[in-house]
Amino acid sequence: VEILSGLYRGHTTGAPLCLLVRNTNVESRSYDEIDGRPRPGHADYVALGKYGGFNDPRGGGRFSGRITVGYVMAGAVARKLLGTLGVTVLAHTVDIGGVKAAPQSLETIRAQAPGDPLRCADPEASLRMARLIQEVKQSGDSLGGVVEGIALNVPVGLGEPVMDTLEGDLAKALFAIPAVKAVEFGAGFAVAAMRGTANNDPFLVQDGGVVTATNNAGGILGGLSSGMPIIVRAAIKPTPSIAVPQKTVNISKMQEVSITVPGRHDICIVPRAAPVVEAMMAVVLVDFALRSGALPHLMKRR
Amino acid sequence: VEILSGLYRGHTTGAPLCLLVRNTNVESRSYDEIDGRPRPGHADYVALGKYGGFNDPRGGGRFSGRITVGYVMAGAVARKLLGTLGVTVLAHTVDIGGVKAAPQSLETIRAQAPGDPLRCADPEASLRMARLIQEVKQSGDSLGGVVEGIALNVPVGLGEPVMDTLEGDLAKALFAIPAVKAVEFGAGFAVAAMRGTANNDPFLVQDGGVVTATNNAGGILGGLSSGMPIIVRAAIKPTPSIAVPQKTVNISKMQEVSITVPGRHDICIVPRAAPVVEAMMAVVLVDFALRSGALPHLMKRR
Amino acid sequence: VEILSGLYRGHTTGAPLCLLVRNTNVESRSYDEIDGRPRPGHADYVALGKYGGFNDPRGGGRFSGRITVGYVMAGAVARKLLGTLGVTVLAHTVDIGGVKAAPQSLETIRAQAPGDPLRCADPEASLRMARLIQEVKQSGDSLGGVVEGIALNVPVGLGEPVMDTLEGDLAKALFAIPAVKAVEFGAGFAVAAMRGTANNDPFLVQDGGVVTATNNAGGILGGLSSGMPIIVRAAIKPTPSIAVPQKTVNISKMQEVSITVPGRHDICIVPRAAPVVEAMMAVVLVDFALRSGALPHLMKRR
Amino acid sequence: VEILSGLYRGHTTGAPLCLLVRNTNVESRSYDEIDGRPRPGHADYVALGKYGGFNDPRGGGRFSGRITVGYVMAGAVARKLLGTLGVTVLAHTVDIGGVKAAPQSLETIRAQAPGDPLRCADPEASLRMARLIQEVKQSGDSLGGVVEGIALNVPVGLGEPVMDTLEGDLAKALFAIPAVKAVEFGAGFAVAAMRGTANNDPFLVQDGGVVTATNNAGGILGGLSSGMPIIVRAAIKPTPSIAVPQKTVNISKMQEVSITVPGRHDICIVPRAAPVVEAMMAVVLVDFALRSGALPHLMKRR
Repeated sequence: VEILSGLYRGHTTGAPLCLLVRNTNVESRSYDEIDGRPRPGHADYVALGKYGGFNDPRGGGRFSGRITVGYVMAGAVARKLLGTLGVTVLAHTVDIGGVKAAPQSLETIRAQAPGDPLRCADPEASLRMARLIQEVKQSGDSLGGVVEGIALNVPVGLGEPVMDTLEGDLAKALFAIPAVKAVEFGAGFAVAAMRGTANNDPFLVQDGGVVTATNNAGGILGGLSSGMPIIVRAAIKPTPSIAVPQKTVNISKMQEVSITVPGRHDICIVPRAAPVVEAMMAVVLVDFALRSGALPHLMKRR
Repeated sequence: VEILSGLYRGHTTGAPLCLLVRNTNVESRSYDEIDGRPRPGHADYVALGKYGGFNDPRGGGRFSGRITVGYVMAGAVARKLLGTLGVTVLAHTVDIGGVKAAPQSLETIRAQAPGDPLRCADPEASLRMARLIQEVKQSGDSLGGVVEGIALNVPVGLGEPVMDTLEGDLAKALFAIPAVKAVEFGAGFAVAAMRGTANNDPFLVQDGGVVTATNNAGGILGGLSSGMPIIVRAAIKPTPSIAVPQKTVNISKMQEVSITVPGRHDICIVPRAAPVVEAMMAVVLVDFALRSGALPHLMKRR
Repeated sequence: VEILSGLYRGHTTGAPLCLLVRNTNVESRSYDEIDGRPRPGHADYVALGKYGGFNDPRGGGRFSGRITVGYVMAGAVARKLLGTLGVTVLAHTVDIGGVKAAPQSLETIRAQAPGDPLRCADPEASLRMARLIQEVKQSGDSLGGVVEGIALNVPVGLGEPVMDTLEGDLAKALFAIPAVKAVEFGAGFAVAAMRGTANNDPFLVQDGGVVTATNNAGGILGGLSSGMPIIVRAAIKPTPSIAVPQKTVNISKMQEVSITVPGRHDICIVPRAAPVVEAMMAVVLVDFALRSGALPHLMKRR
Repeated sequence: VEILSGLYRGHTTGAPLCLLVRNTNVESRSYDEIDGRPRPGHADYVALGKYGGFNDPRGGGRFSGRITVGYVMAGAVARKLLGTLGVTVLAHTVDIGGVKAAPQSLETIRAQAPGDPLRCADPEASLRMARLIQEVKQSGDSLGGVVEGIALNVPVGLGEPVMDTLEGDLAKALFAIPAVKAVEFGAGFAVAAMRGTANNDPFLVQDGGVVTATNNAGGILGGLSSGMPIIVRAAIKPTPSIAVPQKTVNISKMQEVSITVPGRHDICIVPRAAPVVEAMMAVVLVDFALRSGALPHLMKRR
């Protein structure tokens, strides 16, 4: 990382923090082979539709997962600011290829997930996930999964009613991560089969404060943080680059052809998505904290 | 509806279209009973946290589902504009309280859903949903469900890479609908258990154009529309207002108390959410269409 | 004024304050006479170019000075917020038709201008301005002038470097007032003929604080408030509606014709622009105060 | 200039064009001498007020005129886009230190100004300006002036009524240029002494189109472009860095002291501001052209 602006003698100056990471690890040659024959599951075809013939095919351009290095850099700054409020974010793998981690306590997740090779808080599930990845690697195929993000100690009332809900902005930020196809909060899609009596989280007094007995709301009511842990899950689709021949169209000839996508392939990006989910949660939360005046000391005068 | 500005002799003038619907059907009395005792599942508690003691409790204020009348008005305008591109949007009920509609063809959905009392394209499921609603009504409880939104004939390339993805903006718009807790596109959360070979949608030539054989992507690749139908599902939580006593906290005394929420209760708002989903999809799509120059004739000079 | 939202029992609720003033005093008939024959100095011609034939000609639509009632309403709210910081804004007439007010002390301006019929702090000049207005009224002509706006007690550091300078946002806000054609701060255009030794304002210690001996900068250095009074002047062009025949073009026939603009004519709107200048200054200053965290108590929790 | 993104094989790709110029020509040592003793006319004092003690004093940071290299880079791109509409922008020096250029025809300005060492279209005035600069240089003092910007062939109707007027956005962009203290359009401050009969520009038919006989409006009516040349003038204050002792305050001791500003001094930056004015005009005009759909071909599909 090269810091281009905004830092002087170890402190931010008020100027924009501009951090530069150069994308040097690129093989342009391999992409020439697929020019005009869009890879299934990739953005080649839509980029052609949007930008015509001049778009940069190298490495998938801005559609590549490499773009997330910027998210993580922003997240690192956001987490420093959130730290002044005592807010922490944490993401862990809860599903790879259909192998699900058993539900764990917050304490277990914080203790286990960061050190696990797949960022999974359930060691037994992690082993099965690892075996599945090895199997699928043999077949040249790829795997999806689910990452769960948690934010703790968020003050009550972050978010805006109506348009800029906390769920809406978190979801928008998570869908900016390539391969995310679904986002749910708290009980998520399970709410469809729940009754109001089961879904409503009763309020209790605990340690002199108000909490809820359950957290089906995932820490968000009416689009605003409730003070309970924010719980969000994002589904990651299987990596579209696979080592198996696939059907596509030669666009200039409008003929159906078969391609095998060249280049390196990731079998499963789910564990690598976890820090990106953390970064995006931190960025959204710090934006709302600044907007609500919850971080006024950051802007105080000498 | 009163049209305050932007229309003159049947045409828009270029001034903002301002449409006013007054919220006249309010019983303020009933809300006094719950002042300071936040209703579980409602925004009362977070509004208190955000705004202090001056927030307007009448009808839930901006947290009420009534706010969606504005969305539907905006959607009506957006659909007129989308019509000039041939784009249509349609939403239908696919789940109420765990009763799921069987998958239907696009033709069946278009034919059946609009006339069904529950906006469901599967008549048999619709009957079971209706029975479930009656049952739950007896018990004073409430039901959630899932609405699926479909946009047809969307040009290739709407959406922006990186931050303003089509998924992200659609999701943000859907989370602005009160009670939405989850949003998924195409195969959605099911991608977690799919392999790349199954999830990637192969490209084909059909009627002289490029289509995909399947639509697991829900019409969106790389955050941009692919030309295939856009498919999005939103989970709606059970209505939090129920006629059953619930636990909460008397905030000023910090004592746990029981309340029974007064006022009218909707057992299930899922069918009523469908037109709101359509409206929000239309608004997002027309914004991107304008942004991409796909609607330039709207701005042409005489 | 009808308050549509945002107030409950005398306090703001956090919802948008929506204030409605209906434009009832309109004679549509008189505008039919000039349809297709744009009035010189008015926006008729550019509105035709921008919106084609459907624009609303009644009263000039959004190009009319009537639009400023909204500015003044926003300004009233902004001034209440600024009051919590001790900031005040004041505008007065310094020139009508070339009759200039003699420079006055701040004390005199505050004492004299608000009660003067032309908002002028120099009583003798005010009399000559009034006589000039009477003369010009006889001839059916109109007069321009200059309004000076002053903001006192502005904290140091409001504004943003580079793009969102305090001068830039104040100027943009003032140019939103119809008929404003020029904006200058402090010494303004006179800086062109000044040397650096004369234009630079030396810093001094006064009453334990830092002030400048002169205020050629008009209270703004580097785009940020310096703590000295903010001084801005806006030139108002003569009202374009005059009771004298003028040359224009019949657009549909592309023929030069003569028109006499019907309807009521204001000889000079300069004194009426003063409260609008105050409102716009207040709105910009409160925006920057919120942005800088100078008003955190407005957002505090209970 | 290093192009970091957005270009591939000579064409833009749709990704952001990111251009990097490193600020290498900095002497940090000389600024240490003035730390805590703000230079009159500079942003040192307000930066201290806004950012506290950590701001970067090197070269004035973002308050330095060096920031305008970014404006000129953006302007270069904007001018390429405007070129597809036939729009050109041109700025020239009309006043240095009170020496005014005689009014010239558009043809003379286009022929003379670009080649003149002071960007002045009046050769005789240019010589007197040059002599004045030499004189002032001897005394260690500095000079201000006025730059006039002209945009030709602008389509009718660019700009937005009410808030985003063309004057407002041009003025905001010009006030982003360090040292600009005043902006006027067309007749500018002279409108104060004009009658409506003189200020209103009569419409005429010329070469089959509609023009105005005069251009007191500076090409802008009702905040929108009229099709006539856009004429704007910006006053540039004398460079605040002078080689003459000045009074200031030692902030930590709150004592009045005398400083002589170290480093290189520009006697007069007016001619160097002209290309920056051109750049800012181009950026604003291309933004409005895109917003109005006047440049739809830029976004068309293959």
